[in-house]
Amino acid sequence: MVFEVKILGSSSATPTLNRNQSCQLLNINQQFFLLDCGEGAQIQLLRSKIKIHKISYIFISHLHGDHYLGLFGLISSMHLQGRSSHLTIFGPPGLPDIITLQLKYSETVLSYPVTFKEISPDNPGVILETEEVFVENIPMNHRIPCNGFLFREKRKRQRLIKEKLPKGIKISEIIKLKDGLDIIDPESGNVLKNSDLAYPPKRSRSYAYCADTLFDLSILDQIKNVDLLYHESTFLSDLHERAKKTHHCTAAQAATMAKMANAGQLIIGHFSTRYNNLLPLLEEAKAVFENTYLAIEGETFTIPDELESWNQPQK
Amino acid sequence: MVFEVKILGSSSATPTLNRNQSCQLLNINQQFFLLDCGEGAQIQLLRSKIKIHKISYIFISHLHGDHYLGLFGLISSMHLQGRSSHLTIFGPPGLPDIITLQLKYSETVLSYPVTFKEISPDNPGVILETEEVFVENIPMNHRIPCNGFLFREKRKRQRLIKEKLPKGIKISEIIKLKDGLDIIDPESGNVLKNSDLAYPPKRSRSYAYCADTLFDLSILDQIKNVDLLYHESTFLSDLHERAKKTHHCTAAQAATMAKMANAGQLIIGHFSTRYNNLLPLLEEAKAVFENTYLAIEGETFTIPDELESWNQPQK
Repeated sequence: MVFEVKILGSSSATPTLNRNQSCQLLNINQQFFLLDCGEGAQIQLLRSKIKIHKISYIFISHLHGDHYLGLFGLISSMHLQGRSSHLTIFGPPGLPDIITLQLKYSETVLSYPVTFKEISPDNPGVILETEEVFVENIPMNHRIPCNGFLFREKRKRQRLIKEKLPKGIKISEIIKLKDGLDIIDPESGNVLKNSDLAYPPKRSRSYAYCADTLFDLSILDQIKNVDLLYHESTFLSDLHERAKKTHHCTAAQAATMAKMANAGQLIIGHFSTRYNNLLPLLEEAKAVFENTYLAIEGETFTIPDELESWNQPQK
Repeated sequence: MVFEVKILGSSSATPTLNRNQSCQLLNINQQFFLLDCGEGAQIQLLRSKIKIHKISYIFISHLHGDHYLGLFGLISSMHLQGRSSHLTIFGPPGLPDIITLQLKYSETVLSYPVTFKEISPDNPGVILETEEVFVENIPMNHRIPCNGFLFREKRKRQRLIKEKLPKGIKISEIIKLKDGLDIIDPESGNVLKNSDLAYPPKRSRSYAYCADTLFDLSILDQIKNVDLLYHESTFLSDLHERAKKTHHCTAAQAATMAKMANAGQLIIGHFSTRYNNLLPLLEEAKAVFENTYLAIEGETFTIPDELESWNQPQK
């Protein structure tokens, strides 16, 4: 089962020649979630050879243009390509007004149903449950209402050791074993321990996307022990006053958040356009939290489902 | 004096890997006019090394996303870069509503003044007069209100032949000569003919931008004898029924328009994404109007101010 994050944009405020604005695609077992949708997101998706009709859920953190201006183009293209499947968009109040107005003046009636779900940083918690994951919004501390998003796989089931199963075992007993329960041996009447007949479940993975925010430890409980943390890192520490003023973070602050949250790995992004060379940002973060990577466009971060292969540098 | 059109986007409906959506930059003597502003226009401007603060006027033909979705990103970036100079935007009703709503939800107060001028295809005529040009809107025949734009340089002044001017000529006489009038020789009292003392003015050039439209000859009078005509050419003729249904044109129709308008040169663009290879569109148009060129991104079309160098293929 795949659990991976593809970086489609990592620039803050304005785009640069090699960095588009915020956008990521999360693939959890072939269910696709788009996180923010900066201008040109549909072109980035095209470049990445991702079929846009596969995207079921779009999450918009906030209504600064660099995080959502690609949305109307993307939903228009889905329409022009004849999409029929449902699309759900999570975002702050105001987003439906903007989309509705754009649809009105282009005299477009979309070919597919769209549900908009309004979310607020004042109410963090579960905003979506699918077969495989829970999604929570995380309150960001920005100049306008802004949410991060936490994806947690549901607890998986025990994996049966087929050769150890008693003969003639019933389906109802198999379900018990998968659910982690012991069973009774149909022949001897003895208790058969679950741990003798099944391996523990594969791990349930998690990803937290922390969009534009001031350094704010109040979210620590929510993102504690997350496998992979994306945290905005707009500036180097020499501009920490500017970071504070504009409600953004430095690379060191992003890394401190990863360290204190006991995250497995950290991706930093939302880089100020002043940085042509991103290595100083990486170095600053790594000095605090070694397992840090840059959000480089086109790169994919995969969370494996076996514990032993985690926490190793990925390529 | 420069008069040139730079192509920044030529795709219709959705972008392709090598074609952005409609956008052109017109430079008339270092005054910059942006024609349509498809998604990613600011990135195209960045690639072309054009400073966005130089743009004084933006013209939006209509409110289909592929013609205006880059506008809010562009005006936001102008703001983030601290622009202070005035920007004037011409466009159909509805555009100010959309921009105002986006500014409201991003809690942005632009750093520079913007004037919005509403235009309608029901009222074609002069919409702007600058020191050097008149701009007219041209009624397009599309599914929603849509305008084309015609740029005509004002009549220029006679060019004096310095060595032939009488000695002691007054400034008031020079002005008369520049205005094409004869003068009286201060010594002999004879009439000195303007044509003996001045060359004719350099030519006044013109460019017509005909955005999305059905083939409609009713605009012929307005674009008659235009030097350079851009005309949408979404399809090849085998899809002329589809062109009609979607209120677009074929390459042959665009070329017929150029021929009937007695245009100097034709640029075709707004190509359907179905065409990877654009040469068949070019060939179809050239069969009707030889002096046709493709709107290829990054290419610049220059109209010279000397007649003899016109009507030659440009590179």
